Amino acid sequence: MLDTAMPPASLEQSMNNFIEAQRARIDPILLRRFEKQKNWPQRLQESIRYSMFAGGKRLRPILALSVVELLGRDITRFENLFVALECIHTYSLIHDDLPAMDNDDLRRGLPTNHKKFDEATAILAGDGLLTFAFELLSEPDFARMFQAEHVLRCVHQIARAAGAAGMVGGQQIDISSGSTLDSEKALEELHTLKTARLLSISVTSPALLAGSHAAILGQLSQYGDAIGLAFQVYDDILNVVGNPQDMGKAAGTDEKMGKTTYPKLLGLDGARARAKDLCAKAKSALATFPADRRRPLERLADFIVERIK
Amino acid sequence: MLDTAMPPASLEQSMNNFIEAQRARIDPILLRRFEKQKNWPQRLQESIRYSMFAGGKRLRPILALSVVELLGRDITRFENLFVALECIHTYSLIHDDLPAMDNDDLRRGLPTNHKKFDEATAILAGDGLLTFAFELLSEPDFARMFQAEHVLRCVHQIARAAGAAGMVGGQQIDISSGSTLDSEKALEELHTLKTARLLSISVTSPALLAGSHAAILGQLSQYGDAIGLAFQVYDDILNVVGNPQDMGKAAGTDEKMGKTTYPKLLGLDGARARAKDLCAKAKSALATFPADRRRPLERLADFIVERIK
Repeated sequence: MLDTAMPPASLEQSMNNFIEAQRARIDPILLRRFEKQKNWPQRLQESIRYSMFAGGKRLRPILALSVVELLGRDITRFENLFVALECIHTYSLIHDDLPAMDNDDLRRGLPTNHKKFDEATAILAGDGLLTFAFELLSEPDFARMFQAEHVLRCVHQIARAAGAAGMVGGQQIDISSGSTLDSEKALEELHTLKTARLLSISVTSPALLAGSHAAILGQLSQYGDAIGLAFQVYDDILNVVGNPQDMGKAAGTDEKMGKTTYPKLLGLDGARARAKDLCAKAKSALATFPADRRRPLERLADFIVERIK
Repeated sequence: MLDTAMPPASLEQSMNNFIEAQRARIDPILLRRFEKQKNWPQRLQESIRYSMFAGGKRLRPILALSVVELLGRDITRFENLFVALECIHTYSLIHDDLPAMDNDDLRRGLPTNHKKFDEATAILAGDGLLTFAFELLSEPDFARMFQAEHVLRCVHQIARAAGAAGMVGGQQIDISSGSTLDSEKALEELHTLKTARLLSISVTSPALLAGSHAAILGQLSQYGDAIGLAFQVYDDILNVVGNPQDMGKAAGTDEKMGKTTYPKLLGLDGARARAKDLCAKAKSALATFPADRRRPLERLADFIVERIK
């Protein structure tokens, strides 16, 4: 009975195993880095750790890790980058959930940061995580593994992707015009800023650090932009068809709030086709890499448009 | 009549002229940099500009500019640093004023950011400014003026000063224990984090960029730490004796909120003596620099413990 409502069990299972295996490589890196951080005021520390370790998929660091392996580099050198990307993502969730923003009480089935602690602490936890990302990226023990010019380029691109012309700007457009967007172009612009740019920089930043050639950066950019947008298209689909228990949050909230979404603009089938199309485009951008090396990034592209949460 | 309540008019006048002259060098740099920034969503842009150009004293960039001149360097190369320091300071004010934090309606006599715009926009304006600071510090046109290793060191120290072990941590301690601090040591720790570290990094960051010797960095650190703390001691004094019209905000608020302050712990005269003492300590740290070069930083130390707002 249950199986008929889900993707074929073997595929689903193999996908989950893959993601779990990748997450199992990232989580200890995050844990280790936060255990070191003993010089933060206690409540702030608790609040930051609470959100950092509240069951995230770790998609951004997993993408970065997969690119490091695609490039044949040593992942231990890139650990601060993985942590920094997850810090920026987590800060954005904490601030987006605030009462003045999306006013969410639950995130991944747990109370949001301001519900568990308080609003002031949640604002400061976000501020602290964002700042910590840049502390990590410029940390001497990390930076000296690379050419200093490459580290600076990486810092610069991450700041641009996360800032007022990127993620922060996307959130501003979302809160002030979420229901008035009437074209796919306007919706795409919003989501490119709000979600896709940080996903895309998660893909390109390892190559920036490694000083990869422009051609490789170009391919990774194409892959990153495509999966970034695919992620949001599929997020809109999940908001319609997802299981609240799997997602750890309510479904159908976009429609209730009158938000413009891909299913609303393109229909559910049209949105699914668009997500699949973006996924294929992402995979084809990597076609010139050896098959075994590009395989994890291809699976991640599939995961993004097949996940259940 | 009026003159008897104020410092001697000539001294006061000369101090104001000096600060105004320095501010007149910083403001066009800030204006120019923000005019360039056309790719931010409009309301976010308005909100960011509103707080950036709401009459700040520009103390942090003025300190940095004075150090650049102390070191005999070309100030045009350091412009992004000046802007970045003011961005971090302004973001911290916007977030500190939020209803969940200090809940202030006025700042420098004008509505606070969330009063003028709305809470969500104010949170995002702060996030955007903090991120922009790191974008500026890693901008290729700026970074190539210096050794890349020096720029990274500067980014790292600024992130540490601004983050959870610095300014953000200080604000967390302030909101959660403002009235329970019972010793000068605990109060000093709070203010070192909340205010002094960003002031101090404003003094040392130009030398980090310039790659100055450890001995010079040590002297600048001593100066910076001392004026950083003096600033807060004198801020507490102003909260008792200041003129609300000069300050653009109410006086006596600390006492009303039962906050632990220097005048409360040391008495008003004791607090004044402490501020003067820190000012003298700051000036003596610079004694080996040529008199004409160190003069602006000496005047800034005086200004910090003699200002009326």
